[in-house]
Amino acid sequence: MTTRTGPVFTKVALLGVGLIGASMAHAMRRGSLAAHIAGYARSPETRKRAADLGFCHAMHDDPRAAVRDADLVALCAPVGAFASLAETIAPALKPGAILTDVGSVKMAVIRDVGPHVPNGVHFIPGHPIAGTEHSGPDAGFPELFDGRWCILTPLEGADETAVEQLKELWRGCGSRVETMEPKHHDLVLAITSHLPHLIAYNIVGTASDLEQVTQGEVIKFSAGGFRDFTRIAASDPTMWRDVFLNNREAVLEVLGRFSEDLSRLQRAIRWGEGDALFDLFTKTRAIRREVIDAGQDTAAVNFGRNPAKPRS
Amino acid sequence: MTTRTGPVFTKVALLGVGLIGASMAHAMRRGSLAAHIAGYARSPETRKRAADLGFCHAMHDDPRAAVRDADLVALCAPVGAFASLAETIAPALKPGAILTDVGSVKMAVIRDVGPHVPNGVHFIPGHPIAGTEHSGPDAGFPELFDGRWCILTPLEGADETAVEQLKELWRGCGSRVETMEPKHHDLVLAITSHLPHLIAYNIVGTASDLEQVTQGEVIKFSAGGFRDFTRIAASDPTMWRDVFLNNREAVLEVLGRFSEDLSRLQRAIRWGEGDALFDLFTKTRAIRREVIDAGQDTAAVNFGRNPAKPRS
Repeated sequence: MTTRTGPVFTKVALLGVGLIGASMAHAMRRGSLAAHIAGYARSPETRKRAADLGFCHAMHDDPRAAVRDADLVALCAPVGAFASLAETIAPALKPGAILTDVGSVKMAVIRDVGPHVPNGVHFIPGHPIAGTEHSGPDAGFPELFDGRWCILTPLEGADETAVEQLKELWRGCGSRVETMEPKHHDLVLAITSHLPHLIAYNIVGTASDLEQVTQGEVIKFSAGGFRDFTRIAASDPTMWRDVFLNNREAVLEVLGRFSEDLSRLQRAIRWGEGDALFDLFTKTRAIRREVIDAGQDTAAVNFGRNPAKPRS
Repeated sequence: MTTRTGPVFTKVALLGVGLIGASMAHAMRRGSLAAHIAGYARSPETRKRAADLGFCHAMHDDPRAAVRDADLVALCAPVGAFASLAETIAPALKPGAILTDVGSVKMAVIRDVGPHVPNGVHFIPGHPIAGTEHSGPDAGFPELFDGRWCILTPLEGADETAVEQLKELWRGCGSRVETMEPKHHDLVLAITSHLPHLIAYNIVGTASDLEQVTQGEVIKFSAGGFRDFTRIAASDPTMWRDVFLNNREAVLEVLGRFSEDLSRLQRAIRWGEGDALFDLFTKTRAIRREVIDAGQDTAAVNFGRNPAKPRS
């Protein structure tokens, strides 16, 4: 890492100021990473709220105005909006600027954005692996990326200096950075993020449709495990719709595996095969240990799910 | 609620001193609910560790010695061990004593324990809806039951005074108490607890078997959603094997519903039906709000998943 004097970018434009865009603004301010942060949001309410919160230096109602003279432009809207956004801003992008994004899928983003990128603009897709179940400009906070991974998927022949500069920004935001092939990214995220969300959405839906159990009972006794799924299933609906529509192949692939495995478990329960259940449940426990060791569940460490030492 | 002077029970015996048994001991001490707490554990290591931690007044290597003269006996072992445990202690139970349990299923417990209960002993099955992914005597802590529900499933003709006394103990441990039909309990828990655990175990298993994605990658990028499943999938294997073997019907019923719903989602993804996805994702978000309003996710409130207010 180079020792930096001054900000990483003179002007950064955030197109979308929800959870991720707002958190980037907070993190960039915390680290003095950008001299000027320009924001854009499609809806007047979001623009107003973001302006009131003040994490951007200026809020714009035209994305072309936001990106003008920007050294870094980050697409922080739901990925379904990227194609038209990219088309709109293309003529206003500064030559030599870096264009990146924070979308949860990468192949579809390259497909949608790639064709609009002008010569001389460095398009470097990215994805910070961080989030909460909250959304909107109020949801942003400076620590969101601390200790989390950010994956960049630079295209073949990408400018090394530009990639390094983007890495420096993410490191300044608290992230660790890794590069990956876009297709591999989509598969890794399908299993670590997209399938978990799909399953959580699905089980919460199933529970609310059960006619023998009231919704009140489901809520009341949710501490038995269900509540953790409700948290994940509270994530932004538009963002997640776009993720599933845009990572279809990889999601269907891992979902197929999941369903096969679930059928095997179902059979083990039906036939009373206790050993098969025990063996799986023992194996999965070891994986939890590794997640904690890798520092990827700070809640378990900092906030202490089991805080009290016995006191007798 | 009556105003109590002195402990609720003179002697309580805990057969099993893992997460739940140990937490009961801590909570009873915190509330001065029992004059003497006797503990039993099958394994010498657990007995030794529990004795060192000192949350029981005495640890026994014979469950009959532990239950002698006890006013309340609580089965806190995995439910698969209940039948033989009940058979063993039956002759040593004091007439007029209450026999309860903390098992996650109730029909099977009534089937296994019921036949061994001597005349004059009040058998009142129970289930505190609380837990963590940790197990063993070290995992116990006094606040585990605070604000959580405890479900009692008294049999027909159960002694009202005995039921009230057991309720008082659980309230003293911090719980809210509800009574329910055992069969209904098993269905409610199948959806709020057993299916979520099964799904979590399954997805963690699926992830670890994917040959295109390394286990290291799964761990590294688990912050995208997967890590929450690993926490649930770290729960005690023996306990959970017994739950699934002993709540077969209800689990298979809700699992069937879940799989049907998942097939519908799979189809929506395959055919690009964005509206169907968006509608479900919006509905599930509302349920999350209710879980928080009902005080069933204190982590979200106390520890703040999104603690920082924007500071710009």
